[in-house]
Amino acid sequence: MSILVVGSLGLDTIETPFSKVEEALGGSAVYISLAASYFSQDINLVGVVGEDFPEKYIQLLSGRKIDLEGLQIIKGGKTFRWSGKYLYDMNSRETLLTELNVFKDFNPIIPENYRDSKLIVLGNIDPELQMNVLNQLNNPEFIICDTMNYWIERKNEALRQLLKMVDLLVVSDSEARLLANHPNLIRAAKIILQMGPKKLVIKKGEHGAFLLTNDTIFVAPAFPLEDIIDPTGAGDTFAGGMVGYLSRVNTISDEELKKAVIYGSVLASFCVEKFSVDGLIDLDEAKIKNRFNQFRKLIYFED
Amino acid sequence: MSILVVGSLGLDTIETPFSKVEEALGGSAVYISLAASYFSQDINLVGVVGEDFPEKYIQLLSGRKIDLEGLQIIKGGKTFRWSGKYLYDMNSRETLLTELNVFKDFNPIIPENYRDSKLIVLGNIDPELQMNVLNQLNNPEFIICDTMNYWIERKNEALRQLLKMVDLLVVSDSEARLLANHPNLIRAAKIILQMGPKKLVIKKGEHGAFLLTNDTIFVAPAFPLEDIIDPTGAGDTFAGGMVGYLSRVNTISDEELKKAVIYGSVLASFCVEKFSVDGLIDLDEAKIKNRFNQFRKLIYFED
Repeated sequence: MSILVVGSLGLDTIETPFSKVEEALGGSAVYISLAASYFSQDINLVGVVGEDFPEKYIQLLSGRKIDLEGLQIIKGGKTFRWSGKYLYDMNSRETLLTELNVFKDFNPIIPENYRDSKLIVLGNIDPELQMNVLNQLNNPEFIICDTMNYWIERKNEALRQLLKMVDLLVVSDSEARLLANHPNLIRAAKIILQMGPKKLVIKKGEHGAFLLTNDTIFVAPAFPLEDIIDPTGAGDTFAGGMVGYLSRVNTISDEELKKAVIYGSVLASFCVEKFSVDGLIDLDEAKIKNRFNQFRKLIYFED
Repeated sequence: MSILVVGSLGLDTIETPFSKVEEALGGSAVYISLAASYFSQDINLVGVVGEDFPEKYIQLLSGRKIDLEGLQIIKGGKTFRWSGKYLYDMNSRETLLTELNVFKDFNPIIPENYRDSKLIVLGNIDPELQMNVLNQLNNPEFIICDTMNYWIERKNEALRQLLKMVDLLVVSDSEARLLANHPNLIRAAKIILQMGPKKLVIKKGEHGAFLLTNDTIFVAPAFPLEDIIDPTGAGDTFAGGMVGYLSRVNTISDEELKKAVIYGSVLASFCVEKFSVDGLIDLDEAKIKNRFNQFRKLIYFED
């Protein structure tokens, strides 16, 4: 099934206790597409960059067979920039700078060629824009949506409208608690499922993820890593791994979604092992399958 | 295999956002023994209480076939008291009061009858006392040890000596990071395994637990609960469920330890569903096995 990814592309400056990179490739659409590219060669990207967006990053994306017809390059514009600093434990971070630049006026236009895409990933942008994307599509089969605290607080009504259209909402634990206004994560999940999305994934970072539907709860661990180099993009990579796997299945059942969560976790584990997108450029099917099998071992116990 | 449990018995006053109990039965030895009592009728308890310790609590423990020959009742003494208040999210708590009373001068004396116990659980007390316990034993087969930040910081040398004798150390994630002085939990685990204990369990509360040995990592989820009434004693109950299960196996292999971690998680999930020890008094084999099977479903994904 074809995949449409809508989200940000940016230049990230990232500092950790151990190292630093400047103006590295980043953005939700980038991480999602790269992760999905290990499963699908039919990925359509919609986003916006400025004229300063390095050609090598365009090459990197198109080298992974990601279609860039939907990438708007704004003449004279500057690309979105983000800068952050991870603290000693690598779990908490400070945002040092956010320069929206061309992303501020992003208006996602879905090219004619993309409108029949089946699997839709709405990266974390204004829910009104996410809704605009859906309105341009012909017959999407499965809609995955991300959001964040900012939109939950400031565009709650638009977000609530959008959630009625969504098949799978992917949020962090703190976002789930905020959206549901309940401290217990399982209760929060049930409240959110009442808002419209058919399925819900709650990402808990180093503690793994939950998948919740009306009849099932699935708990996935995070891969235990001794060296976490850069957590940036892990959540988007997770969504990209999920949608990538789903593009290969016939029917998106709960059982397939569970496996998709594990593939999402696999891709996220590779992502954080290197800076920026470096962990997502030299993978292959064998490496991915191998780590998938390691996940199974990690949780296996005898009868 | 016979079990020896050494730890505290206390009267807990617990406040949550929803309710409050006063002078309820508590203490590490109590939670450990009660949890283990669903697997074994050969549990020997060593601890201390004052003359004010209610007879009904003695009855409750002996009603569960826990041997109390090793329980010192200090004439004219007052029982250990603890009071805490859980915050809105039920994960963080404030200690309002700690009155050590007779626990301050606790000197664990192991009755002759107990000295051949095979499975030893050293609840969280001064590591020097934990070592004294070991010195009184004849031929223990498997030693499980708990500790806390206080001893890691103030009795580090004694703790390090003790760790060389320990088969399984059970600590929380924050304790593991403090003991190893490393923020990454997997690295911290490897550092701790170098200190002596053959195996290590790291408890992560609502995020489950890790079991780590030199050749294996096992990740167990916590049971997803919508209503957490009182988290007090969950960690001790976990250790009690573990040791209870282990008392039934022939050889304590890594595979059996994994199942023990799940049984520990099962018992802990029952514990937090009610105040004080109330969740641990009306269980039976069927309820326990049923939740064990639910754990398997929770993490199962297809090939």
